[in-house]
Amino acid sequence: MSEFDLIRDYFRHATPARGDVLLGIGDDGALLQVPEGKQLAMSMDTLLVGRHFLSDVDPLTLGHKALAVNLSDLAAMGAQPAWAMLGISLPEDNQYWRAWLKSFMQGFAELAKQHEVQLVGGDTTRGDLSISIQVTGFVEPDKALRRDAAQVGDVVYVSGQIGDAALALLLENADAQERLDKPTPRLGLGQALAGVAHAAIDVSDGLLSDLQHICQASGVAACIHLENTPTPTRVKNYIQATANWQAVINGGDDYELLFTAPVLAQQTIKQIAQQQGIAVQAIGHIQQGSGVKIIMPDGQISEEVSSGYDHFK
Amino acid sequence: MSEFDLIRDYFRHATPARGDVLLGIGDDGALLQVPEGKQLAMSMDTLLVGRHFLSDVDPLTLGHKALAVNLSDLAAMGAQPAWAMLGISLPEDNQYWRAWLKSFMQGFAELAKQHEVQLVGGDTTRGDLSISIQVTGFVEPDKALRRDAAQVGDVVYVSGQIGDAALALLLENADAQERLDKPTPRLGLGQALAGVAHAAIDVSDGLLSDLQHICQASGVAACIHLENTPTPTRVKNYIQATANWQAVINGGDDYELLFTAPVLAQQTIKQIAQQQGIAVQAIGHIQQGSGVKIIMPDGQISEEVSSGYDHFK
Repeated sequence: MSEFDLIRDYFRHATPARGDVLLGIGDDGALLQVPEGKQLAMSMDTLLVGRHFLSDVDPLTLGHKALAVNLSDLAAMGAQPAWAMLGISLPEDNQYWRAWLKSFMQGFAELAKQHEVQLVGGDTTRGDLSISIQVTGFVEPDKALRRDAAQVGDVVYVSGQIGDAALALLLENADAQERLDKPTPRLGLGQALAGVAHAAIDVSDGLLSDLQHICQASGVAACIHLENTPTPTRVKNYIQATANWQAVINGGDDYELLFTAPVLAQQTIKQIAQQQGIAVQAIGHIQQGSGVKIIMPDGQISEEVSSGYDHFK
Repeated sequence: MSEFDLIRDYFRHATPARGDVLLGIGDDGALLQVPEGKQLAMSMDTLLVGRHFLSDVDPLTLGHKALAVNLSDLAAMGAQPAWAMLGISLPEDNQYWRAWLKSFMQGFAELAKQHEVQLVGGDTTRGDLSISIQVTGFVEPDKALRRDAAQVGDVVYVSGQIGDAALALLLENADAQERLDKPTPRLGLGQALAGVAHAAIDVSDGLLSDLQHICQASGVAACIHLENTPTPTRVKNYIQATANWQAVINGGDDYELLFTAPVLAQQTIKQIAQQQGIAVQAIGHIQQGSGVKIIMPDGQISEEVSSGYDHFK
């Protein structure tokens, strides 16, 4: 198997063929046509064996997740995804790794098809298993969702439910594991919120840590009611049994959208949530100052925000 | 040092601030404005320790080279570079690796400044040293240089000189080593050739292998005269002493431009070369058929083309 066979067999026709891809995999680079009047949103994430996933991870699941975490970044910008580039290194060229790559690309392609994303290039090398994915999407001018746009008085919302990904690492639960393994990038919701919400971020480091990122970037504070945070019953049970709410509420890897919007947009956001078929819950609001205050179910205020996941801490 | 400190200290202001970057490092993604009427060229390359470079490599040199090999891909498309994304993993968070990263970014930034490239995002993780870089550039519609556009009757040209990078691995020579360590992406030449040349590729796998890539993609054959290949005297001396011409002529890592153009463009190409201050040498021509024929100095024809560098062979 040469690098070129790999490209031909697994990559070139794995994903949907888009009309705006003038030249895809196989040249020095890809040639791409940007729709008139659109701006670009770009993001890039690296996943390393032993750090972001275990060596015995199901490659089908990993293929989904590697693309999903990147598309989640585009969702948090309110962008419509278009193109992906994949840098992948594999330890060996043998039957095992060919089968592995085939499964990986199957998981990648299934998600790519759902969102009409075309793989347009990348690089294949031999080395410890690692995956870098770069994605590009389109946004309407001045409508992108940014971290630095939260305003005092905004309501803080979160989509879906929080805590399953962290719970899956704490105890065995098939449903929670499924949420950890196969996160759903909230692309439709993010696009619908573009031009409506003020600030947004995807919940990867942890709900409180990511809210803190919005506050820092925007120069504001936030106050949220812990009991308003939407969690599955299994997560509620875990908190009740252990009182360790931070581990699941701020565990990260949820890939839900955390966003702020003016009070007047409340009705519009309710409609968007219904149209998208995704629960959206108001959990607090934006204030003057800095930091994230958490109002506990007993009414006490906790200002303790753990730092969430940080690769260099 | 948290991941966020790293970003702030070394990445955010390391490279030129471009007017078309609406939002750079620090959000879920970058927001970018494409100039009206331009198409995009995108490329991505991964460099791994122990495979593409040694662990004791000078980080300043590596920072230059990692960006240079990516910009070389854009040069081969005839594109004007604009934005880069960097995924980097570092083994430890300590004084040594902070200093290492600072030097790496200095080498990266020096080259970025020369070509007005802004680093707009990426990802920092902890793991075995590895570097993935994605670059985006602009091309005029229908003027990009592609591998599949060579036509029968085209003259085959190569820029600069071939063989130093391979020679540096075979024997100690400071000048050859400099060419291996700090390749010059031929961006000005590539942009000037856009709309003039037919097909182009950058010489990374090896002169003959890369010519073979053009031939395969274009459905044509090539015939080149070995003695026309421009080489420094030290490379000529090595060939004379060892007769091992393939090792240096097809050694790869030269990052010169190999391109084909119609006979009628000969004068224009001469002018472009003069304007760019880069030697451009005609080394052969494109024929019907397939494969690369090499005419040896004694007039004999060799059809032997070694496969060049292939990560999975």
